[in-house]
This record gives sequence, C-alpha cells and structure tokens, in this order.
Amino acid sequence: MNIITVSRQFSSGGREIAKRLADALGYDYYDKEIISEIAKNKSLDEKYVENTLGIKAIPLHFARSFTFAYASTAKSELLVEEKRIIDEIASKGRNFIIVGRNADILLKDYKPLNIFVCADMESKIKRCLEKSTEDKKPSVKEIEKQINKIDKGRASTRSIISETKWGECTNYHMTINTTGWQIKELVPIVVKLSELYFGKEN
Amino acid sequence: MNIITVSRQFSSGGREIAKRLADALGYDYYDKEIISEIAKNKSLDEKYVENTLGIKAIPLHFARSFTFAYASTAKSELLVEEKRIIDEIASKGRNFIIVGRNADILLKDYKPLNIFVCADMESKIKRCLEKSTEDKKPSVKEIEKQINKIDKGRASTRSIISETKWGECTNYHMTINTTGWQIKELVPIVVKLSELYFGKEN
Repeated sequence: MNIITVSRQFSSGGREIAKRLADALGYDYYDKEIISEIAKNKSLDEKYVENTLGIKAIPLHFARSFTFAYASTAKSELLVEEKRIIDEIASKGRNFIIVGRNADILLKDYKPLNIFVCADMESKIKRCLEKSTEDKKPSVKEIEKQINKIDKGRASTRSIISETKWGECTNYHMTINTTGWQIKELVPIVVKLSELYFGKEN
Repeated sequence: MNIITVSRQFSSGGREIAKRLADALGYDYYDKEIISEIAKNKSLDEKYVENTLGIKAIPLHFARSFTFAYASTAKSELLVEEKRIIDEIASKGRNFIIVGRNADILLKDYKPLNIFVCADMESKIKRCLEKSTEDKKPSVKEIEKQINKIDKGRASTRSIISETKWGECTNYHMTINTTGWQIKELVPIVVKLSELYFGKEN
C-alpha cells in the first residue's frame, strides 16, 4: 500500500496538488471527509470539529482554568477519534493520498511519502481573494492575519502529537513552493517522486 | 540561459546532487572554483577566503571594536569580489549550476531555478563520518556542533545581502530532503523540475 501525505501552508494550493495527484495516480483521496466522519461519529457540527482541531493548543499552565481545560479536553478527544478514523482508512490496504491532519505522523509506521506545500504570502493572499465571493471580499490585511492564524494553529496542533516541527524541511521528503506556478504544472514532479519512492526499498 | 542554484545544509549531499545534475543536463558547474578565483584575484589563501565568507556576520554594535570591524570589512570586500565573479560567469551566457554562495540572491535577475537541499542530523553526521579519515575521526558531538556552526554562518552571511531567510521554504522552488536516499536517486526529480521550469514562460 502506497500512502502520500500532503501538509501545506494555508492557501498555498496544497489541496489542489493532492487532488490532482490522486487523479493522476488513481489513488483514493481523503481530505474534509475525515472531519465529516469525526462530526458524524461524535454527533457534532463539522465546523465545530474543524475549528476545534485547528485552534492553538492550550499551554499547560493555562489549562488549569476550567474553560481552557475544557477546550483542551475536547480537542484531545477529537484527535483520538481522528487517529482512529485514519487508522481505519489505512486498514483498507488501498493506495491513498491524505491532506493535512498530521497524517505524516499518524501514519508513520506505513512509511508514507510526505510532501509539504508552501507559497509566498502574496500568492497565498491572491489565492484567497480569488476564492472569496464578490460581496464578501476581506481586506488584504485581514487575509494575511487569517493565514498566519490558521498556520499557527496547524503548527500548534502538530506539537501536541509530535516533537517535530510543522513545516520544517527535514520532516518531509520534499517541500514544493507553488509561487509562480499553476498547480497542475507541478503534479508531474510529485508523480515522479512517488514513482522513485515507492519503487525503491524503504 | 538556464541557471540552477543549489543551496544546502552542510553535509546534506547538496554538492553531490548539484554535480550529478550538471553531468545529467550538460551544464557548467561552479562550486569551489569561485573561492579559488577570489583567492587568486585578492592574493589570499583559499582557506582564509572560505572561512571569512563562512563566519558569522558581525552585529553592528560589536563592529565598533577594531578587530571585529576589520573582520567585517574583509568579509564585505570578499563578498563584493564574489559578486563580480558570479556576474562574470553569468555574462558568458552558458547554462550553469552553482552551489552555495547565495547565488539565488545574486543571480535573481536571471530568474534561476532555486533548490535547497537538507537532511536530518543523523544522516548529516553519518555523511561527515564517512568522509573523515580513519586517523582523524571527530566525535559525533563535535561533528554536530560543527554542522550547526557552519549552517549558522551561512544563514548569517545571507542576512548581509538579503532580508529573506536562509533555508526558508518559500525562498526556493523546491526543498529536497536527502535522508534515506542515495543522492543519485534524486537527480531525476530535479531534472524533471528544471524541464518544467525552463520549459515555461517565467
């Protein structure tokens, strides 16, 4: 079974690379499905699950206060369920690509190919603006703040389950910068890397 | 003219990737030649040039002391000569690959393809040990200290000529982690990326 994990800076185009890669390789693809599954199993709202898993980890010295401790517990519980669902996906034995969810850590024993996708701030803001609707265009400053906040949340969630740093190049096989590219142009690179990676003994 | 710059963590195998890539693509290759050229033109010892360019930049508040100011000036002078030599290489109009020397910054106007090469500490130590002679084997601790020192020097030298951070993924088109690979296995990836990069309009 071949597994590719795609971690990414917010709005860097990582999700699009992953989807196109899954199509090119004929692999199963997992992304928001995992959030939906957690929400269903825990009878929670999807948005709530997404936000709770995305928020910054609670530093232990704050966790003494009831509110923080509660938020922290909720997050841990969702992380446990997330792990269970990801293990279940892996147990199917089919090749798959998974976006985010610290899958590179959770699936470590399967020796996945781990990709990190980044882009410069200007491109990320541009991609955000293209996706927002005409009547709800946030300011560039608001978008930049949001991008930084989301990525800080991702780094922080990773720190709960791993000592390795989110986005640090030595934690991924390859880091791709999408700045200046159309996402589809980059797919052959990851296809090539996956051929080499799964073709050799790991 | 196609230019590929290869920046790298010390002992990550970046130089070997660059050399093999130059062979595969039939590009000219520049590495230590630049140090030799600076040394020749300035009538200095090569080791001195390499060390001076490698040492940490002198923070301005220290530069008041004569010794530090002297070292800092020497470094600036060598950096100017380095830039002149690199410009001269580019003026030949031939495709080339260049290792280190902050060439991604110095050659920015030529829109080079910029690669960063990294590896985990264990692999870098292993590569160092393999290269050291039997009678002069440093301890693992010494090697690790030396690797960190050299990379800090590189980051610091970059900070003199650019506000962008050494090793930060958004400053390179691709970052490759050589951990677990034989260097030659990774060459096709960079060949593929260079085909795509130089094949499109930049």
